[in-house]
Amino acid sequence: MKNQQILLARRPQGAVVEEDFRIVETEVPPVGAGQLLTRVHYLSLDPYMRGRMEESKSYAAPQPLGEVMIGGTVAEVMESKNPRFKPGDFVVGMGGWQQFHFSDGAGLRRIDVSVIPPSAYLGPVGMPGVTAWYGLTQIGKPAQGETVVVSAASGAVGSVVGQLAKIRGCRAVGIAGGKAKCDLVRGELGFDACLDYKAESFRADFKAATPKGIDIVFENVGGTVLDAALSRMNAFGRIALCGQIAGYSGQPIPIQNSRSLLVNRLLLQGFIVSEHMELWPQALAELAEHVAAKRIRYRETIAQGLTSAPRAFIGMLKGENVGKQLVKLV
Amino acid sequence: MKNQQILLARRPQGAVVEEDFRIVETEVPPVGAGQLLTRVHYLSLDPYMRGRMEESKSYAAPQPLGEVMIGGTVAEVMESKNPRFKPGDFVVGMGGWQQFHFSDGAGLRRIDVSVIPPSAYLGPVGMPGVTAWYGLTQIGKPAQGETVVVSAASGAVGSVVGQLAKIRGCRAVGIAGGKAKCDLVRGELGFDACLDYKAESFRADFKAATPKGIDIVFENVGGTVLDAALSRMNAFGRIALCGQIAGYSGQPIPIQNSRSLLVNRLLLQGFIVSEHMELWPQALAELAEHVAAKRIRYRETIAQGLTSAPRAFIGMLKGENVGKQLVKLV
Repeated sequence: MKNQQILLARRPQGAVVEEDFRIVETEVPPVGAGQLLTRVHYLSLDPYMRGRMEESKSYAAPQPLGEVMIGGTVAEVMESKNPRFKPGDFVVGMGGWQQFHFSDGAGLRRIDVSVIPPSAYLGPVGMPGVTAWYGLTQIGKPAQGETVVVSAASGAVGSVVGQLAKIRGCRAVGIAGGKAKCDLVRGELGFDACLDYKAESFRADFKAATPKGIDIVFENVGGTVLDAALSRMNAFGRIALCGQIAGYSGQPIPIQNSRSLLVNRLLLQGFIVSEHMELWPQALAELAEHVAAKRIRYRETIAQGLTSAPRAFIGMLKGENVGKQLVKLV
Repeated sequence: MKNQQILLARRPQGAVVEEDFRIVETEVPPVGAGQLLTRVHYLSLDPYMRGRMEESKSYAAPQPLGEVMIGGTVAEVMESKNPRFKPGDFVVGMGGWQQFHFSDGAGLRRIDVSVIPPSAYLGPVGMPGVTAWYGLTQIGKPAQGETVVVSAASGAVGSVVGQLAKIRGCRAVGIAGGKAKCDLVRGELGFDACLDYKAESFRADFKAATPKGIDIVFENVGGTVLDAALSRMNAFGRIALCGQIAGYSGQPIPIQNSRSLLVNRLLLQGFIVSEHMELWPQALAELAEHVAAKRIRYRETIAQGLTSAPRAFIGMLKGENVGKQLVKLV
């Protein structure tokens, strides 16, 4: 049996291009004692992968050259000689950019796809959802009536941040690029306001949308959006620093309005959700409940077929997706 | 009886000059029921006063124009119709830039000057000491063997930060301007290392002085010093943001190395010690014990006479003082 895989062929020079990847086919080895073979249904594409493509020191080890791209997956068990799994089980894990994932079961978690659809385990009931939950509840510590601002608000993480904030009685203000995304954020996702950072009136809109100032920022972007938020922060505000504070091509984006950090006695905390595994069960339980009850809604952009992954990934980095970017393999 | 006072005559345009102040003489009113009159022995000059001279929104109300400059003092009770104080008592409080302080006793605290000299209550056993204690212990949370970096290390706050860090088994690295200050910090104050930020070799010195990276930064300065520290931070480092992140003439100083905040999952917290009064008794008790036992040493620069205060204040803003800047009135 053949396994189609996508490898990292070379480190990107600036913007990622399709030539940075290589498609190969390998043999699937026979399943030995304790092992299992799964077939990938959905592959998750996430912004953090861009960081891993660099060689420079970061919090995660770099994606090795010439190896299968690392990535989260939902997969179905085809064959198992591991007592924890049986054929037909659905599992979530780091299966990578390939059709079949061969493993000893480490890092795989069985999921119930009877109420919640499989793909949601890569979105609101998966890593992006837990990221939103951790940053908002553990760093932001929202109180009823406070104002929460989240950038990349239509994305997999940002959309959950705003909806969790609404559930906690906060005013949720999203920031997104373009009218279509803002309409989604205000409409289907139920935020109180959404600002288009590409609009000329962005700073004025920001002021109008945060009449009582800002108590919590969930920062996915950095740069000018963070500076705009800093100028509206209330005393004792909290900033959860989740991602992409550096530009995609690696240049640093300075924080201009550093004075606000001191004057307003702000707390700023960088975090990586995979370092807080002890809180995942609690977070996933809450998220699953909200998704099942449709209190948390989510959008997906789904590319078809493994070979579409590089192009879909490049599009996601440019903000072409709406909601969670997935690749459907089966 | 005449009371010499120094008023804020106008808001500074850029650098503070002596003409921004005005010296006046007023009558001391008679002491009524519940009131007391104290004679100021020492006046404290502190960097936070520069911020208050601006009209712009900050954490503290601006210093009003045409009124006595606000400032901490150690004073002796001359006359009292308040049962809490009797003539001869020493008190610490916000007596202001004047010879005599007339009050109802609010905000005054009696001090014991038999073991610890009066001026120390404006330094290591006063607001600067508690500032150091709060930022280091409550935000920095030092563990034995960690590396603590503090800027303005020869100053009233910085000198206590480093010595408290040493007492807790940390490596203390100071940053100061010039060889004389660095010699003091390494010698009498007992830091492990001190770096001259004016030296051309500053970045290289910084690397050599922090062979295991940096766990805690106590930031009194901001700007290039903070950026240098950010480039050496260990994962999960803590930054206590205490002061002067904006330039003295009000311009913002950007944080260039914002990437480190995310990549190293740093915590950054701005604070103002006067908002944590519930911890002062605990902090002052520890500080008094260390000062009495000479485990915490301190330097003072003392200007003579009230009228020398404006010039001494301007000198302090330029870093001309060593240790705590005081004015001695009696």
